Amino acid sequence: MSLTEFEIIARYFAHHDARADVLLGVGDDAAVLEAMPGRKLVVALDTIVEGVHFPAGTAAADVGHRALAVNLSDLAAMGAQPSWMLLSVSMPQADEQWVAGFAAGLLELARQHGVVLVGGDMVRGPLAITVQIGGWVEPDGWLTRAGARPGDQLWVSGIPGEAAAGLAVLQQSLAPGAAATHLAQRFLRPQPRIALGRRLRLLASAAMDVSDGLLTDIEKLCAASGCAAQLDIDALPASSAMSELFGASECVQLALAGGDDYELVFTVPPQHAAQLRASAELPLAQIGVISAGSGVQCIRQGRPFAVARRGYDHFA
Amino acid sequence: MSLTEFEIIARYFAHHDARADVLLGVGDDAAVLEAMPGRKLVVALDTIVEGVHFPAGTAAADVGHRALAVNLSDLAAMGAQPSWMLLSVSMPQADEQWVAGFAAGLLELARQHGVVLVGGDMVRGPLAITVQIGGWVEPDGWLTRAGARPGDQLWVSGIPGEAAAGLAVLQQSLAPGAAATHLAQRFLRPQPRIALGRRLRLLASAAMDVSDGLLTDIEKLCAASGCAAQLDIDALPASSAMSELFGASECVQLALAGGDDYELVFTVPPQHAAQLRASAELPLAQIGVISAGSGVQCIRQGRPFAVARRGYDHFA
Repeated sequence: MSLTEFEIIARYFAHHDARADVLLGVGDDAAVLEAMPGRKLVVALDTIVEGVHFPAGTAAADVGHRALAVNLSDLAAMGAQPSWMLLSVSMPQADEQWVAGFAAGLLELARQHGVVLVGGDMVRGPLAITVQIGGWVEPDGWLTRAGARPGDQLWVSGIPGEAAAGLAVLQQSLAPGAAATHLAQRFLRPQPRIALGRRLRLLASAAMDVSDGLLTDIEKLCAASGCAAQLDIDALPASSAMSELFGASECVQLALAGGDDYELVFTVPPQHAAQLRASAELPLAQIGVISAGSGVQCIRQGRPFAVARRGYDHFA
Repeated sequence: MSLTEFEIIARYFAHHDARADVLLGVGDDAAVLEAMPGRKLVVALDTIVEGVHFPAGTAAADVGHRALAVNLSDLAAMGAQPSWMLLSVSMPQADEQWVAGFAAGLLELARQHGVVLVGGDMVRGPLAITVQIGGWVEPDGWLTRAGARPGDQLWVSGIPGEAAAGLAVLQQSLAPGAAATHLAQRFLRPQPRIALGRRLRLLASAAMDVSDGLLTDIEKLCAASGCAAQLDIDALPASSAMSELFGASECVQLALAGGDDYELVFTVPPQHAAQLRASAELPLAQIGVISAGSGVQCIRQGRPFAVARRGYDHFA
């Protein structure tokens, strides 16, 4: 194919949508944006690399979805409302069919969340995508990892482990069926919990998204908050799809260390629990409590529970 | 070495500097920033890949400098004042010595421009760096590529071609000496023209930074502005260092198509030219004029001049 870098950008990424606060979008040296009156600016950036964050051969639309979803998940963890993004695509050669699929997956998710692409870069290199997301949050409070206090309840959204189970399904080419399809979709199409984050903004004391694995991410939340957690293995949300394809102990391991969930793990003062339970369009589960001290202790049937693998570190 | 991703971030990238408008910096899911009252937000993002944007084996500090410089250059081209950045580093393994050098080069340039690192990502993958830069501009005007009008003068800062000459010096291991060293530094340590951009904000009618090559970048400016340019080859700024190491026609070719200059090319209505000349802490040269029509015509000694190579396209 013969499209240049500039033609690709013009064809697939310029003028895809509009927001009144985008004063200058794709096509110049930088974008110019209106600040949202009275709000704080919230920004994050995440990179996904072929063979590291998604298997080689993953459909381009799924890669586009993932590149944005992992960033939206960061804004969800802050309680912020996303509004614009910058995109960097590194790819070995200009493959127009791939770009078309990638743009479709990326921009479909962007539209669902009112996010506009305002600029970026396209370079020759190994397949990797960086998205930078910007959004806004009310000045009276945003979520961090640092606010958990002894006595708070520990909660998680959705079903941690299903995404890692989906990756295993894809890698091991398990027999197709409803359960395998459900799990594969959970890996391929993570759903950022923006609406939940917005609701948690003034209910939760701390929050983060689950990307490296539930256990290691709770450890980070506890370290940032200067406290400890007891995690009740028996309270982990059950997945009928996982139970169908994996043994009981593998299900626990996937839930604790699988990663790629892009759910929210958060802490809630007891006095806010009733309000939290009252408004659940998404399954939420209390999986433990916060206490004084440090570290995360896993408990099963009242006894300490030893975990084989705790989570993902890129350079471990 | 045994540092984890989180330890690397904590050791080299957290708490390096402070700005009052950074409400929450490195270490959480996202950063929270104060909007600058009455200003517009300006954002850009650029990726540099080893072997594409810098030679394999380039010193880590030079890579760190470049990763930020190319982004600052985009903000310079808008007339904006930079203030914060996000950083993504993809590297094959956690090399602490490399990270230390990279951080030193990156953060030294950041300090010079009052830019604070507020977050980012560190992943395993081929060596590539993405920086996203944010800044602010006054609401009464910013520079774009689209404002040039027939009759405007065409100007460039610095000496286009020296950076590409420096790359040639490095790749061909030319004999060391003052000229070779000067040119190599021009490639390795591009100086973003933030102060010039700020001055041009209300003087220039259009501006962009010179990254892919002077000629192709002027073509883009003309296309965005809907006009044509006559570029006077004889008016290109001379470089004694280039003349010492390269033949006359190669010097012209490097100036027109070399790329990597990170100078500003801009257009100025004639009535602003005196004010522009009056305040030059940096060499500025008028290299042509804008006219009605489209495309860029090169002129040498009054006659059309044919150019062999026009500039850089990643997928050409």
